[in-house]
Amino acid sequence: MHDIAKGSVLKRLNRIEGQVRGLSKMIADDRYCIDVVTQIAAVQAALRKVEEEVLRDHVAHCVEHAIASGDADEQRRKVAELMDVFGRSGR
Amino acid sequence: MHDIAKGSVLKRLNRIEGQVRGLSKMIADDRYCIDVVTQIAAVQAALRKVEEEVLRDHVAHCVEHAIASGDADEQRRKVAELMDVFGRSGR
Amino acid sequence: MHDIAKGSVLKRLNRIEGQVRGLSKMIADDRYCIDVVTQIAAVQAALRKVEEEVLRDHVAHCVEHAIASGDADEQRRKVAELMDVFGRSGR
Amino acid sequence: MHDIAKGSVLKRLNRIEGQVRGLSKMIADDRYCIDVVTQIAAVQAALRKVEEEVLRDHVAHCVEHAIASGDADEQRRKVAELMDVFGRSGR
Repeated sequence: MHDIAKGSVLKRLNRIEGQVRGLSKMIADDRYCIDVVTQIAAVQAALRKVEEEVLRDHVAHCVEHAIASGDADEQRRKVAELMDVFGRSGR
Repeated sequence: MHDIAKGSVLKRLNRIEGQVRGLSKMIADDRYCIDVVTQIAAVQAALRKVEEEVLRDHVAHCVEHAIASGDADEQRRKVAELMDVFGRSGR
Repeated sequence: MHDIAKGSVLKRLNRIEGQVRGLSKMIADDRYCIDVVTQIAAVQAALRKVEEEVLRDHVAHCVEHAIASGDADEQRRKVAELMDVFGRSGR
Repeated sequence: MHDIAKGSVLKRLNRIEGQVRGLSKMIADDRYCIDVVTQIAAVQAALRKVEEEVLRDHVAHCVEHAIASGDADEQRRKVAELMDVFGRSGR
């Protein structure tokens, strides 16, 4: 991964880890469940951002590398992989 | 929250915290991004389970409490809250 | 269903039927697939609006009716039904 | 689009058009709203199948064509387009 994207993703994941710890504290403290669910939605949104950043970096590097190489089979593999990832994510 | 549900949710959140830490390690170790995205999907699924468990407990308690109270206004508030939660979660 | 909501939902469904027919025409005319997918997303969004309107009307009537009746068992059934609907929609 | 995929997609869209008409009838007949919402979910699922089939055909043709052409710029455009499509679909 590019160093800039890596730093940004690690920072995001660090924040997410804190949010999950915060969720545990909310549960332990018997916080109102609607607030807990709202907080879970915030973590989900933060994870989607990470996923998007990781995929964008992947396309910018692995896929771009396959394109630059001119290796058609490698390009097919990369595109199949991408399709697979999108197929899996429960859209 | 019920003690049993509480224990179960806290255990799940603990595991999720570990998974997020694992994600940071995958990024730091330059693991293949498709594997990272697969792992992100696993965390999302785990969070959905927590959300479901929290909501189920909420209905079993807060909403049930409002029903048992016979207080129609309180019941309306609870149902409006639930609708709100579902409207927000980007379905 | 309330007459006003009913009219609004029927109008929406009519428009959606036209959009689906439009999709068939796009396919038959060999329109660019990315445009087709964009149009599919528009239909999905329109269906979500219908779903929301139908549920809102349901809560305003059936659930409200159960609340006004003071019949706790009926209220439990209605809430269980709502939870079920939300559990099913692949959030 | 390939003739086989085209026939299959048109058949699916035809069935979806019928389902949407069925939804209008359910609304007009004051059918129970939970049944309406269940039917809406079925249409959404059917549309996702169409989307998947259209995208699969797109990758098998347009993207494959770009790969076979060896034209790197065209390949970049196709991958950017795919990323765009997936970014838009409210995952």
